[in-house]
Amino acid sequence: MEKAFKNLVRKDYPYLCGGKLLLAVSGGVDSVVLAHLCHLAKLDFSIAHCNFNLRGDESDGDEKFVVDLADSLEVEVYTESFDTLNYAENNGVSVQMAARELRYEWFAELSSSVHFDYTLTAHHANDNLETFLINLIRGTGPEGLAGIKNNKNEIVRPLLGFTRKEIEAFARKRNYKWREDSSNTSDKYMRNKIRQQIVPVMEELNPNLLDSFARTQAHLQESMDLVEDYISLLYPKLVQKDKYGYAIDIEFLKKVPNQKQILYQLLKTFGFTEWNDVYDLLDAQTGKMVLSDTHRLIKDRKKLLLTEHNENSVGKEYSIGREEELVMIPGMGSFHISEVEKRGQASENCIYVPEHKLEFPLSIRKWKKGDFFYPFGMKGKKKLSDFFKDEKFSLPEKEHTWLLCSGKDIVWIINHRADDRFRVENSDSRILKICIT
Amino acid sequence: MEKAFKNLVRKDYPYLCGGKLLLAVSGGVDSVVLAHLCHLAKLDFSIAHCNFNLRGDESDGDEKFVVDLADSLEVEVYTESFDTLNYAENNGVSVQMAARELRYEWFAELSSSVHFDYTLTAHHANDNLETFLINLIRGTGPEGLAGIKNNKNEIVRPLLGFTRKEIEAFARKRNYKWREDSSNTSDKYMRNKIRQQIVPVMEELNPNLLDSFARTQAHLQESMDLVEDYISLLYPKLVQKDKYGYAIDIEFLKKVPNQKQILYQLLKTFGFTEWNDVYDLLDAQTGKMVLSDTHRLIKDRKKLLLTEHNENSVGKEYSIGREEELVMIPGMGSFHISEVEKRGQASENCIYVPEHKLEFPLSIRKWKKGDFFYPFGMKGKKKLSDFFKDEKFSLPEKEHTWLLCSGKDIVWIINHRADDRFRVENSDSRILKICIT
Repeated sequence: MEKAFKNLVRKDYPYLCGGKLLLAVSGGVDSVVLAHLCHLAKLDFSIAHCNFNLRGDESDGDEKFVVDLADSLEVEVYTESFDTLNYAENNGVSVQMAARELRYEWFAELSSSVHFDYTLTAHHANDNLETFLINLIRGTGPEGLAGIKNNKNEIVRPLLGFTRKEIEAFARKRNYKWREDSSNTSDKYMRNKIRQQIVPVMEELNPNLLDSFARTQAHLQESMDLVEDYISLLYPKLVQKDKYGYAIDIEFLKKVPNQKQILYQLLKTFGFTEWNDVYDLLDAQTGKMVLSDTHRLIKDRKKLLLTEHNENSVGKEYSIGREEELVMIPGMGSFHISEVEKRGQASENCIYVPEHKLEFPLSIRKWKKGDFFYPFGMKGKKKLSDFFKDEKFSLPEKEHTWLLCSGKDIVWIINHRADDRFRVENSDSRILKICIT
Repeated sequence: MEKAFKNLVRKDYPYLCGGKLLLAVSGGVDSVVLAHLCHLAKLDFSIAHCNFNLRGDESDGDEKFVVDLADSLEVEVYTESFDTLNYAENNGVSVQMAARELRYEWFAELSSSVHFDYTLTAHHANDNLETFLINLIRGTGPEGLAGIKNNKNEIVRPLLGFTRKEIEAFARKRNYKWREDSSNTSDKYMRNKIRQQIVPVMEELNPNLLDSFARTQAHLQESMDLVEDYISLLYPKLVQKDKYGYAIDIEFLKKVPNQKQILYQLLKTFGFTEWNDVYDLLDAQTGKMVLSDTHRLIKDRKKLLLTEHNENSVGKEYSIGREEELVMIPGMGSFHISEVEKRGQASENCIYVPEHKLEFPLSIRKWKKGDFFYPFGMKGKKKLSDFFKDEKFSLPEKEHTWLLCSGKDIVWIINHRADDRFRVENSDSRILKICIT
C-alpha cells in the first residue's frame, strides 16, 4: 500500500507534493494510516485533531494519542476542544451534523490563519459506499447518491481508491497503533449495520463491488454535472436578479420541458420541503406563496419571486423632528428636510409640502391594512391596497414601500406618489423640500 | 387493497378504463393478484402467458394454471411456447435476457395483431428496489439506477405503488391460488439474496423504506430527464446527419463544459465499452477509430464520424458486359452504358470513353492499397491514397467510393475523377457514355 499510495500521489495528486497540508486525524485506523502514508511519502503536513468531548475520558485519550503520534512523526499538531452537545442543541442539528460543521469550520479557520494549501481526510472507498447506502435508506436527492466530488478542491481524500480491508491490513502489517471509537450515534449505528450486514452480502454477489460502485457513482456524478451545466445554460434567460431577490420567468419556464425538475434544481438550496406546493405556484393566483425556513417564493403575475424572509422591518417606525435636517433610515437611505424659496418640480425622490400642514414629528412606517390616501392630482381618496394593485406592485415591493406620515395622514408614498392634501398652494409661504437619497 | 387499486386506477390510470388491456400473467402471486384486481375493477382485459420451457413439466403446469385462471375469470387467454435456451444461445444473451426479449416481442406482436391499447405487468415497489440494488451491485450507468419510467406508455405497471407484503397478504386473505417458481437463475439467485438478506436490514433501519426509495428514484429519474433535455438542446448544434452516419462537431463540443459526459450521453446506445479510448479520439490524429460490436467512431479532422460497421461491401466486385446497357449496383444506383455520336461534357455522374480502349467486361470494385490512376487532365500517375488525402476524404467516404476498372486499370473514380488514359481523342470513332444514376 505504501508504494500504491506514492504512485497515486505522483499521478493523481501531484499538487500535494510541495504543498503545505493539514491532515485531519481522529486517531482511528483510517486517519492513522493516512498520517503514516503521508510521512512515508515525505509530504509536508501538520495534524489537526478535534476533541468533540462526546466520550469523556475516551475523548481525551484520543487527543493524547494523536499528539503523541504527531510527536513520533515529528510534525506539528493542532488540537481544539468543542462543546458539541451544546452546539447541536443551540443550532437544532444532530450531534453528527454538529461535529461535522464544527470540524470543517475549524479546518477552514486553521487553513487561512496558519495557511495550509489543502486539507486531507481519510475517507476511503467503503465510506463512500456506506454513505450512499445511508442516503438511499433514508431517502435522498440525486446529489446524496452522487456523493462527494473528489476533485482538486481544498479538501482532498487520497484514500478514496482504497478499501477498509486494505487499510486495516496495512496497519496490522506495519504494527501501527490506533484508537477504537466506542460511540454509537444513530449515524454510526446505521453505518455499522450496513458495514456488517449489507455490504458483505453485496460483496458476495460481486467481489469487485467497490470498484464497480466507484464507476457507477462516477457516472452518476457526471450526469449531475450535466444537469448543472443545463441549469447554468438556462439560468440567464430564466432568472433575473431584482431589488428584493430573484425573479423566475414563468413564461420562459413553460417553454422548456420538465419545468418542475428545473424549478427543483433552481430552488433546492433554499430549504423548501413542500415541493408540490412550489410546483402548484406556477398556475396559482398572484399573491400565493410557499415558505421555507429562510425564504419565500411568491407568485406574482408571470414571475415567481424568491426573497429572504424579511420580518425585521415589519412594524418598525421612525420619527423625524422639525429640527432634524438629515435622518438616516436603515435599508432605505437618508431623509433631507430643507426650507426652500418656492416650490420646485417634484420627482421620485423629492416632494414639496407647505410646513403649516405638517404635524411634527413626522413618522415613517410600512403600509398596513385599511390605509388610504389622496393621490396627488386627484380629488378622491384611494385605498393603498388599490393603489398597489393598479401599479402592479409585487408583494415584496409592497413590503419594501415606506410611507411618510403626518399624524394619521399619509403625506407621501415614498418614491411613488405624493398626497394631494399636502400640495403647495400659491398662498403658502413656508415650503419644505423633503428628499430621500 | 381492492379499494386502493380501484382509486388508483381512477386517479392515476384513468385511460385504462375503456381501453382494451393485455395482462401478462406468469402464474406467480403478483400477476395472479393483478388479474383478480383488474377483474374486480371491471377492466376490459385479456391474459397473455409465456411458456419459456425452462422447467419442463413445471412450465406446462404454470401454463395450465393460467389458462384455468382465465377461464374462471371469463377472459380470453393467449399462450405461446418459446425455445428460450436456444434463443439465448443463438443471440449470445443470458437466459433471463432471452426470456425478456421474447416476452416483450410477443406482447408487441399480440398488441398490434389483436389490437390492445396497453400491456399491463405486475411489477411492484419491491421489484423496483431489487432491480436498483442488482444494478448497483453489478455496476451500472445512471439509467440503471433511475429505473423504468412508469408513464403513459404502452407498458403500464399499476402495482408499482404496492409492496410485495401487501400483495401477498391480499392474496392470502382472498384465498387466491398461485404458482411458486422453483427456478434459480443467476438473476433470481441475486434477487433472492437481496430480498432475504439486504432489504430486511434496510427496512429495519427505515420502516418507510419503499416510500422513500420511490421518491429517491423519482428524483433521480427527473435528473435523467434534465440530462436528456440538455442533450436534446445541444444536439442540433453538435450533430449533423451525413451520408454515411452522424458527424459530431468537435469544435462545438470543446466549447461546452464536461465534453466527455456529453459524448457518453450521445454515444451510450451504440455499444461502445472502451470509453477512455472514445474520449481520447477528441485529440487523436485523423483516421484513428474506436469500434463497438455494431458501430465505428472515427476521428476525421474536426469531426467524429459515427457509422455502422459496413463490411458487407468490402471485397465485393460487380462486372458489366458490353451488351448490358443497364446494371443495378446495390447501394450505389444503376449504370447506363450507351453509344453516342460525339463526346459531351463530363460531369459528376457521367464520363465519355473511347470504346476501343476498354476491356470488357468492366469491373466495379472498392479501393485497395497500392491503387493508382492518372488523374484526368494530368500527365503523371497518382496513388489513390494521395488523391483521397488531397480531396480530404473521410474514411467512410473512401470506403463508399467505387472504382470503374478496365482490366487492372482504373477508368473512373466514380462520381469523383476520370482517368486520363481513357480520354476521348479526336480520332476516336466509337464513343461510349457511361452514367450512374
